[in-house]
Amino acid sequence: MSAQVSREIRLKARPTGLPTKDDFELASVELKAPAEGEVQVRNLWMSVDPYMRARMIDRPSYAPPFQLGQPLQGAAVGEVVASRYPAFKSGDIVRSMFGWRESFNAPAKVIEKIDLRGLPMQTFLGAAGGPGLAAYVGLLKIAELKDGDVVFVSAASGAVGSIVCQIAKIKGHTVIASTGGTDKCVYLEELGVDHIIDYKATKDIPAALRNAAPHGIDVYFDNVGGAHLEAAIEVARPFARFALCGMISQYNGETPAGPRNILLAVSKSLTLKGFVINDHFQLMGELANQIAVWFAAGKLKARESVAEGIDSAPEAFLKLFSGDKIGKMLVRLG
Amino acid sequence: MSAQVSREIRLKARPTGLPTKDDFELASVELKAPAEGEVQVRNLWMSVDPYMRARMIDRPSYAPPFQLGQPLQGAAVGEVVASRYPAFKSGDIVRSMFGWRESFNAPAKVIEKIDLRGLPMQTFLGAAGGPGLAAYVGLLKIAELKDGDVVFVSAASGAVGSIVCQIAKIKGHTVIASTGGTDKCVYLEELGVDHIIDYKATKDIPAALRNAAPHGIDVYFDNVGGAHLEAAIEVARPFARFALCGMISQYNGETPAGPRNILLAVSKSLTLKGFVINDHFQLMGELANQIAVWFAAGKLKARESVAEGIDSAPEAFLKLFSGDKIGKMLVRLG
Repeated sequence: MSAQVSREIRLKARPTGLPTKDDFELASVELKAPAEGEVQVRNLWMSVDPYMRARMIDRPSYAPPFQLGQPLQGAAVGEVVASRYPAFKSGDIVRSMFGWRESFNAPAKVIEKIDLRGLPMQTFLGAAGGPGLAAYVGLLKIAELKDGDVVFVSAASGAVGSIVCQIAKIKGHTVIASTGGTDKCVYLEELGVDHIIDYKATKDIPAALRNAAPHGIDVYFDNVGGAHLEAAIEVARPFARFALCGMISQYNGETPAGPRNILLAVSKSLTLKGFVINDHFQLMGELANQIAVWFAAGKLKARESVAEGIDSAPEAFLKLFSGDKIGKMLVRLG
Repeated sequence: MSAQVSREIRLKARPTGLPTKDDFELASVELKAPAEGEVQVRNLWMSVDPYMRARMIDRPSYAPPFQLGQPLQGAAVGEVVASRYPAFKSGDIVRSMFGWRESFNAPAKVIEKIDLRGLPMQTFLGAAGGPGLAAYVGLLKIAELKDGDVVFVSAASGAVGSIVCQIAKIKGHTVIASTGGTDKCVYLEELGVDHIIDYKATKDIPAALRNAAPHGIDVYFDNVGGAHLEAAIEVARPFARFALCGMISQYNGETPAGPRNILLAVSKSLTLKGFVINDHFQLMGELANQIAVWFAAGKLKARESVAEGIDSAPEAFLKLFSGDKIGKMLVRLG
């Protein structure tokens, strides 16, 4: 097998505030044949996710920071094109954390062969991947969703939020979904949520939430932080549970904002619980099985926004923060 | 039995910001003989507690607001002086929520007869009362204290905090205690805590906390909110649990402050859990038994600051916010 070229996106500069295209660079590397125990994978889809912003900061966290001049990392699905490991063969569909590049060699042991279960392969970067796991774990394990709960979700048209909405509706809950912009509101209507808050068209998020949930909310799935978190605390019923999945309003923040009404967490006996999906990967199989069942039954839809080609990946990533996409943001590489 | 006079403290005005003496008024009422099913109680001790500040605001909460022109309410212990209910007799020591007054008649069913278990009766307003219950429930049930946890407590020399410190030390934990002022630091040394932070002498609470807990904290017992809560989030280890018991920095606040680093609750998988002791009253007997054992063994001390006479009650209450007291603030009425 002859050497071939793979293009990849590297972190050129650590962004301060909102990242720009200039923080990224496209580079080409020559890919040798895989060594003993390795596979070579041609990526077909890669994921861009908000959590990657945090890894661009040089500080200790649950995942190590990205390194300057090195390719970024993230979830990707692809096809094995060469294998020197018995359990993998050419044509196998695999998931890895070697996104942001067209092709790569890696030890087979850090690559996951996917049983597609009838799902499109890119679903394993969305509803049946990390975002779906965040929705599933956050709602069912972290917020301990129970019958009758009124559920509030922010960034509800996003990769995670849209799955939260759908799982909660499948389970029969009243769902209040916040998003920004008419197109996204239309999408949320399609998902069948009970109340939609267009926060960009709303001066007073707590009032809008109170209007949608006159008796208060029992569960808040937070993807946004900031004013949404404050509104949720304001309108929470006693003993409400908050799954803190992400706070996209805070990621680029020169002016981080805490919920000024946090004192209400005492008098209302609220539980605010942060989580990271890395601690719940053992549920990935259960999730994929469940998503496949719902998908086949037409109960769950996986909306995607797709950018084409590795060179479009930085722009796709930036759309996570501009909000200029609906559902799971993906980059098609194959 | 002839009618007698009882003096009481009424809410004269709803305070804005820090309460002042002018928000209270002393009044006298004539007390008739108790009716059928009632007891008459002469209060010997009454409690002033920070939560009472919240009840001075006219808004719905877990307890109804105090009414203008009416006597305040709160925990008190006293002696039955007349009874028209078979299960109570003169001389019985009882606890009630009819504090802020010298004597009262009430239906026997809302009065609790106390088995002193060898404890001084006023302990049932402190270590074996609401503040002790807050410490006990907050540490053991809400924060789910487990072996090896490093515990951080704010307002550590207060009625709740001092019991938190002592329970955590009895159970063998490293305890970091924050308070303000030299006298209180001396008191915390007597309690045997491992590290003391005098926040009034510290410009950088997170740095002081990091210094005391280089590997981070596992449990934060919050009585203060504000900068202390932020520092605890900053220095928390992954999966740390926060018992949100109170936030005295926020009670009089014209400028409420949320923790600006709340985003770290996601990446560190923190749990912040507010609670109110009213939901845990069923543990009051278990608490009193345990406190009596520790007290008899010399393992737990109940430090008190005592004001004398009903007319001193407003000032005693104000000391909760000026910090001009150590341990449980009490008013002796008998």
